[in-house]
Amino acid sequence: MKVKIVEVGLRDGLQNERTILSTAYKQQIAGKLIRAGIRHLEVTSFVHPRWIPQLADAEQLVSQLPVNTAVTYRALVPNCKGLERALPTPVNEFAVFMSASETHNLKNINKSINETFPVLADVVNLAQQHGKKVRGYVSTVFGCPYEGKVSVSRVSMICEKLFEMGVYEVSLGDTIGVATPAGVKEVLGDLLTQFPAERLAGHFHDTRGTGLANAFVALEMGISTLDSSFGGLGGCPYAPGAAGNLATEDLIYLLHGMGVETGIDLDALCETSLFAGKLLGKKLPSKVLQSYVGVKERKRKE
Amino acid sequence: MKVKIVEVGLRDGLQNERTILSTAYKQQIAGKLIRAGIRHLEVTSFVHPRWIPQLADAEQLVSQLPVNTAVTYRALVPNCKGLERALPTPVNEFAVFMSASETHNLKNINKSINETFPVLADVVNLAQQHGKKVRGYVSTVFGCPYEGKVSVSRVSMICEKLFEMGVYEVSLGDTIGVATPAGVKEVLGDLLTQFPAERLAGHFHDTRGTGLANAFVALEMGISTLDSSFGGLGGCPYAPGAAGNLATEDLIYLLHGMGVETGIDLDALCETSLFAGKLLGKKLPSKVLQSYVGVKERKRKE
Repeated sequence: MKVKIVEVGLRDGLQNERTILSTAYKQQIAGKLIRAGIRHLEVTSFVHPRWIPQLADAEQLVSQLPVNTAVTYRALVPNCKGLERALPTPVNEFAVFMSASETHNLKNINKSINETFPVLADVVNLAQQHGKKVRGYVSTVFGCPYEGKVSVSRVSMICEKLFEMGVYEVSLGDTIGVATPAGVKEVLGDLLTQFPAERLAGHFHDTRGTGLANAFVALEMGISTLDSSFGGLGGCPYAPGAAGNLATEDLIYLLHGMGVETGIDLDALCETSLFAGKLLGKKLPSKVLQSYVGVKERKRKE
Repeated sequence: MKVKIVEVGLRDGLQNERTILSTAYKQQIAGKLIRAGIRHLEVTSFVHPRWIPQLADAEQLVSQLPVNTAVTYRALVPNCKGLERALPTPVNEFAVFMSASETHNLKNINKSINETFPVLADVVNLAQQHGKKVRGYVSTVFGCPYEGKVSVSRVSMICEKLFEMGVYEVSLGDTIGVATPAGVKEVLGDLLTQFPAERLAGHFHDTRGTGLANAFVALEMGISTLDSSFGGLGGCPYAPGAAGNLATEDLIYLLHGMGVETGIDLDALCETSLFAGKLLGKKLPSKVLQSYVGVKERKRKE
């Protein structure tokens, strides 16, 4: 079994942190992540700098990332304007995003779901003209802060539209961390009757502690691409102080327990998260990280 | 599906907390847990008060618990001396404990595994003479801080001995929180060929974030008794600062997502944990609890 881990901490993690890191620090973190074995990095988002001040240095950052042909750098783009800013940079891949909930989509990108499709189709089209691959993100797949449960048939319809446009993979986001393993089974069970597992990715948040259990269920159902954030960096705008993305360390620990070779050095990853936590002035929530610190502390005292 | 949740926070949680709570506060917490719907409470341990100062008030506490015939109160007893102290109290059930790791057993109860059996057999015998049921705890089932991996055949041998003595249920403990879902599948897969699922319980710790995923796998394999601790109270003596027992809130959230009726009011449970956290001067680690606080905070601001 081979599992692709997409490290989204520098984008999805940092955009939910109050502290704004300097470009130099982000670049250092990227370097450390790569040395720890991370190969797929989502580094930033080319949205308008006013939207997400934490990622306002997109151009600057991507021009200063470590040069490593084994690494795929990805950036989010909301529309062709964003893509045009990103195209001349060393970013290898792009990602478009929309929500499976009408209300969330409207609040988040100020368009209805149907109005969003042509915007994203233009992005995919333009990216492909430049020989670049595009991933699709669907958010609130397992529940919406405004609408509650989201219909699986709507998720399925959106996936179909995104694949028709030419995205190579759809990442199914549990944006507010409400999914449970039972819900993941239900939604994936349905989607996998229509789409091959290798074209779907799981993007779980740990807001209610279910992130890892959900990831495990997805893996058992054949999903082999999972998104996570080093240290569990990030938070949830709908529940301030609560956890955000599934922690990469916790996911790696699970995978190594399953005998899956990830090529990632867990200790080096923990050290990276400790470095980032110090910069952000907070203890990052990954349990493996906290256990790593505790075991280190105990050995120091002995 | 019916799941029995054994709330071990007052025992396994508190014994790993630095702060010693007063008997009156413990009693208040027990009352709140029961009002939240908890029906199985492990409340203390009748070990020598010097061993675990946090639980030194065992007699006093159990004489002041809410009278409720729907509730089962359980206490740990290390030997007949402990049981003799506990027998005249209102405690309904007892539990004996030992380790699946020779080194851990020796360090923890100062006896080899073989020397431990007759001591526990005497306890079970005496308890049964008084018409009381006894549970057996086996610790370090999924890994030991001294020996690493523990052989499944030794776990199986210990379970068999405990059942022969007359314990009605064996709780399989991941004492240091190293188990992964793959490991749980392996160990349970083996044990379930020898023992019926209804006589085994899962006791998972969340030290490396896998507690809930492990519980989910155990449930899927037919285990219907799970131990957990309100708020995720407790810690890990082998990794100071790291998480301890699986949080009851997180487990309940998972179960409700599976459509399992638990009779437990999640909000009332969160309020109980907030109360206890205030007394202990710390933020308890349950993710559902943190999300509950975050959502409350957000609503307050709106």
